[in-house]
Parts: sequence; C-alpha cells; structure tokens
Amino acid sequence: MPEFRIGLLGHGTVGSSFAKLVEERADAIEAEVGMRPRLSGVLTRSRGDFEEILEGSDLIVELMGGIDPTRDYVLRAMEAGRHVVTANKQLLSQHGEEVFDAARRGGVQLRFEGAVAGVVPAIRVMAETLAAAHIERVHGIVNGTTNYILTQMAATGATYEEALAEAQEMGYAEADPTEDVTGKDAAAKMAILARLAFSAPVRLDQVSCEGIERITPDDIAYARELGLALKLVGSAERVDRAVAVHVYPAFLYAEHPLASVNGAFNAVTIESPAITEITLSGPGAGGVQTASAVLGDVISAMIPPPSLPPPAVEQPIVTDVEFSFYMHLEVADRPGVLAQVAEILGLQGVSIRSVVQKGLGDEARLVMVMHPVLESKFRAAVQMIARLDFVREPPRVIRVIEETF
Amino acid sequence: MPEFRIGLLGHGTVGSSFAKLVEERADAIEAEVGMRPRLSGVLTRSRGDFEEILEGSDLIVELMGGIDPTRDYVLRAMEAGRHVVTANKQLLSQHGEEVFDAARRGGVQLRFEGAVAGVVPAIRVMAETLAAAHIERVHGIVNGTTNYILTQMAATGATYEEALAEAQEMGYAEADPTEDVTGKDAAAKMAILARLAFSAPVRLDQVSCEGIERITPDDIAYARELGLALKLVGSAERVDRAVAVHVYPAFLYAEHPLASVNGAFNAVTIESPAITEITLSGPGAGGVQTASAVLGDVISAMIPPPSLPPPAVEQPIVTDVEFSFYMHLEVADRPGVLAQVAEILGLQGVSIRSVVQKGLGDEARLVMVMHPVLESKFRAAVQMIARLDFVREPPRVIRVIEETF
Repeated sequence: MPEFRIGLLGHGTVGSSFAKLVEERADAIEAEVGMRPRLSGVLTRSRGDFEEILEGSDLIVELMGGIDPTRDYVLRAMEAGRHVVTANKQLLSQHGEEVFDAARRGGVQLRFEGAVAGVVPAIRVMAETLAAAHIERVHGIVNGTTNYILTQMAATGATYEEALAEAQEMGYAEADPTEDVTGKDAAAKMAILARLAFSAPVRLDQVSCEGIERITPDDIAYARELGLALKLVGSAERVDRAVAVHVYPAFLYAEHPLASVNGAFNAVTIESPAITEITLSGPGAGGVQTASAVLGDVISAMIPPPSLPPPAVEQPIVTDVEFSFYMHLEVADRPGVLAQVAEILGLQGVSIRSVVQKGLGDEARLVMVMHPVLESKFRAAVQMIARLDFVREPPRVIRVIEETF
Repeated sequence: MPEFRIGLLGHGTVGSSFAKLVEERADAIEAEVGMRPRLSGVLTRSRGDFEEILEGSDLIVELMGGIDPTRDYVLRAMEAGRHVVTANKQLLSQHGEEVFDAARRGGVQLRFEGAVAGVVPAIRVMAETLAAAHIERVHGIVNGTTNYILTQMAATGATYEEALAEAQEMGYAEADPTEDVTGKDAAAKMAILARLAFSAPVRLDQVSCEGIERITPDDIAYARELGLALKLVGSAERVDRAVAVHVYPAFLYAEHPLASVNGAFNAVTIESPAITEITLSGPGAGGVQTASAVLGDVISAMIPPPSLPPPAVEQPIVTDVEFSFYMHLEVADRPGVLAQVAEILGLQGVSIRSVVQKGLGDEARLVMVMHPVLESKFRAAVQMIARLDFVREPPRVIRVIEETF
C-alpha cells in the first residue's frame, strides 16, 4: 500500500495530539483514501533537521506557531512542491498574501482549517460550499476563552476578574490571557475569514479590536433584562465597495444564531443573499479538536478529486435501541397510582428520572421522564400501564434527547 | 475562456432557480475557477432530448426528482463519463449503492449536497472535514415544514391542524403534506446521512419513522414547563456493531444545539470523539437555497484539486461603519436629563430605539438602544453627553446585533 509521508513541524499540545491521531486513524484513512499516512519526521525548536524532514515528506504540517522561523519553513516547503497544512493564524493574518502566492507558484495545496475556529469547518464551507456565493457578512464567536468567561458571568453573576480566574483554573484561559481577552486572537481569525469571504487582502493590523476586560456584571444583567446575550463578536462585512472587519463585545438578540452559543464553543454565521445564512458551531480550539481539523485538511490533500463515499460495508440495522422517554398519563387521583405505575416500570427495568403529579380527582396527570432504556422494554411497560383501570386515556410517549456536552 | 457545459434535467422550482443562479454567478465562477459555466441543454418531462443533452455536456444536474426515469438518466450519464450533481433524496435513499457504484465505475464525481438539508453543508462536512473521523451519532432537524409547524405550535399554542393550515398558507407546507408530516421526507434524508456517516448501506425502508400528526399543544406546554423544546428529530447512531436510524418527535434539553433551531430551518449535529460535535444550521430547502447548494457542488466538480483562495483584489478597508448601540448612563435624576441627552443624539443623527430610565435622585440610570448609525457620529454624541454635568460616570457603550432573519 502506498504511503503518504507527513513532516510535522512543532510538537506542543496540538502537534502531539495530531501525531497520536494520525496513528489512531491510519487504518481508517487507508481504507478511505487508498494511501497510508505516516509521520516521516518531527521538528521541534530543539530537535530535528528541517531540510531532512522536507526531503522525506509529501506534505508538511506546521503546528509550531509564530512567524519566525515558521514563515521561512512554510515558504520553502511550498517552493519545494510540498502541500502545507497549518493552524497558524499569526502567519496567515500577517503574511497571508505572501504565503498564498507561494502556494499558487508551487502548484501545491495550502489548507488551514485549524487556524480559525477549532473544529468548526468555516474555511472549507466558505472556500467550497460558498465558492461562488456573494458573501455579504460573516459574524463569528471565534475565541473560546472569552466566550467561556462571558457565559460564566451570565450564569453566575461573577465579575470579569472572577470568571477569568475560573477559566484559568479550568484550563480555558492561559496564565497570560492578553491575546484572548483583548480580542487580538479573534482579530487574527477574522482577518483570515474576511480574506476568504471577500477576496480582500485584510491584515491583522487593519482589524479594529475591542476586548472584554471592561465588561461588568451590570452590562450582562441589563442584557438579560432586554432579552439579549453578550458575546465577543467578530464581524467582517461589505460596506459599499469596501470591507469592514471588527472585533467587539456585542449584545445579540435571542433569535440570532450566535446568541445560544455558550461556553468554550466557537461558531460562525455566514450571510449571503442566495442562502440567507449558514451557521457552523462546535468546540473551540482544544488540542484534540484542532488536531482533528488539521487531519481533515491532510486527508483532503491526499484525496484526488472524485468525492465519493467509499464502497459500503454491510452492517446490521437495528431499530430497538435505548432512548430516554417522557410519559404523560391521565389518571384518576387515588392512592397507589404512582406506586403501581412505578412498579410496572421497575419490572421492565425502566428507571424514573423525574416525575410531576398534577391536578385532583378525575383530572389528575402524571408526567414522568425516564433514564435511557431499551425501547421494547419501555413499550412493554407502557402497554401494561395503559391497561390499568385508573388510566383514563392512552399514555402519551415522546422521546427525550439529552445535552451532548 | 474554456466553457464548462451543464446539462440540466428538470425545470421546476429548484431547476429554474438553478438556471437563473448559473447565469447570475457565471462571472464570479469564471474568476474563481478559470472556466465559465453554461447551461448547454434543459430536459423537462415534455421538452428536450436526453441523448442530445448528454452529448453536449460535461456535467449533468438532475433536479427532476423521483425514481423513474431519473434513475436511468443518472446511471447513463455516469456510464458516459459525466459528473452528476443531484438533489434527489428518493433516488439516493432507495438506490444509493447502485448509483454510487456507477459513479465509481465511471470514475466520475457524484455530489448531492442539495438532497439533504437545504443549504446546510452536512454532506460536504461529513465527506471531507470528517473523512476519517469515527462518527458516533448524527442528529438532524432535516425537514423545514415540520420544524415550522412545531415552532408555531410552541409560539402560539396553536393545535397541529391550525399550525399546519398556517404553514400551508405561508408556503412552508404543500397542499398534500403527507411526506413531510409523517416523517417520510426526513427518513429519506437520514438514510443518506447514515450511509455517509457509517459507510453502511442504509435504505429508506430500514428507517423507523414517526411523524408529528399526533402532537398536542399539551405536549408542548409540558415541554416548556420542563425546559425542553419539541422537535422532529432524525437520529443515526452506532449501537454496538450495528447502526440505528430513526425519525421521531423528541424533547430536547435547552442546551442541546438543536433546541434553538426554529422556524423553517434545518440543522445537523455530528458527534465524534475527536471533535465532540459540530452543528451546522441554515434555511431548509427552498428553491433558491437548494439551487445554491447544487451550484456549490457543480463548482467543486469544476475545480481541480488545489484548494486555494484566488488572488486577492485590493479593496479598501473601512473601520467607521453603522452599528446599533446600547448606551448606559449613570445620571442625576432631575428634570430635563432625557431631553438633553436626546437632543445631542438627535443633532448627530442618532435615532433612539428604546429607552429605560431607572432609579431616583443621584442613583438614576438611563439605558438606551439606538437604531443603526455610523459609529463616528454616535461616538461624537457620546463624548458630548459624557461632558454633561449630570452624567456621573463615563457612559458605557456596547454594540447590539440584530436578528438576521
């Protein structure tokens, strides 16, 4: 089986996650693409030789960050005809045109999904799904640290300082949080998104930027009173024949698709007349998430154009699986009703999560939510419950989906 | 400039939107891709000759729907070495493997973003971003009609019948809504998503399916009481070594990313250990939206692999643009305060959208939200207001983002 050799620059949090992920997913990628990915060399600041790694690789993954010596490595890799995948927002927001030009001259792919919004595929959707759409505006929550802090302030009434301290404790903010809380990190990402959305060469220093350091609990309390959510928003939009890119704290009306993006999540809303808007959301840049975005880019670079699902593999289809259920019973309100219902559920192995009993006499209602249980067992219990003489109408059953995070 | 010839099968709502969009975006696509797309022929049930259209095209766009004669056309096009882009969920959910095999044998691209969730790029993200991810579960709101009906029931307390009638009036539901309200339409889409997520050959008739016809206002009232949202959900998941695909009405906890998807919107949440989850949302399948998804697929088929942003075009970057603003003033509560503030705002052309005055004496607060205004004008007004003697602290200013739909 042919190999696809990956030279890795950088072995920090994301780099080491990426190395691990390549190993874990090598079989699946080989089945999908017909080539087996292999790390052919790793360069860190203290170890490895760039020329040697370049020589022995088909593609360079750059996860060192920073401009120097990264810029030089990336340019040399593309001159030498190697595809490059990078998550380096500084490089792209400060030297984007130089790097894009080098990729065009070298006839190689340059992919950078991991540079912008963690696992959220904003770059791919803009560059491919919306390749020829006229994008009017992009709004993004592209910094997980600040979104976590603002979410905590809203949830607990904490001050900025308290929420920041908690975020640092939880690992969502760095010891020196300046890049994040001042909006600089978000500004670099918005410069990259604006470049793609409008084909305008936007540099980091052209993005107006305001952070969250001066937000008070009062602001957030007022926001709630007005039905608004306070977020650090990046915006890139067309204004007449120009382009405007800003980062600032903003109130969002509850119906805005970014208003419900909470915690360390990222999300991007792209507006275009033909599509109205698309919103993409997911966890912000953790090591594993960014590594996963980088691997997606690597696979795209491995695949020749035909975009087809691989041959299907016969797999059993099951219909009887576990669900949480809600059950609504109209019952006569007399002693022992709940006990009998609970007994039948218990016999079928159904465990009750919450129960509310309401009303009096013949008008009583019992509303229950169950822990996950095999559907067939729950339906068997419901059939038995339906036959109880105090149950006045057929039970109403609806599935319940729990939070995934 | 070389042409890229598109043979179009079908000229209904989506087909005619697509034809219009190709014309509108031809210049932009030519600039992006280096080839100019052109409709080289259109086949309808009453007009055009399939063989002739096939002969004169590089790619076939199939928007006729149904199985017969569409299946035959699509297979013959791929045998003849033409790429195919289709939005036909029936064909893919009932004859998917046959069609995929034909594409592989013909060495051609088969793309079908428009078949699943309108403008939401679920197919691309699964096939590309997550090409080698281990997907555990996909949850989707993939039918806009039912989501509109359930949203209306929740918002107004309407019965199912009332909300359906309104959806029909608004053009969100067809005269015969059976396919939508029984969950059949969603089932076909979930079969396609499951096929891609798990490489399992899932057919429409293997999807368990329950509709929304029996949902009552009571169910929705209880949901709200419990902090839940009621949605028609499609789920596809791995269960041990099998695959389970269901469509059913379900309660979602408020924190679930699909809980806040309202109206005729679609959304898909994809869960995988490496990425936690990605959620994609946007308008469901209207004619223009589906046509836009189809055009995205056509462009992908036109582009040779190197995925690079086109050369940048110098565009002015502006920083002074229009925003809505919120302003919070700590003022002494005496006559004329609001009048003076309002006068200054008015002189700068700032129009007030809402105002709340609170407190008494020295503790009074004035909280205002403005209509969109050029930032420089608003800031000038704020500077003047800050100098008023009754303003006790520097004004607090935060931008407000409005709903986009």
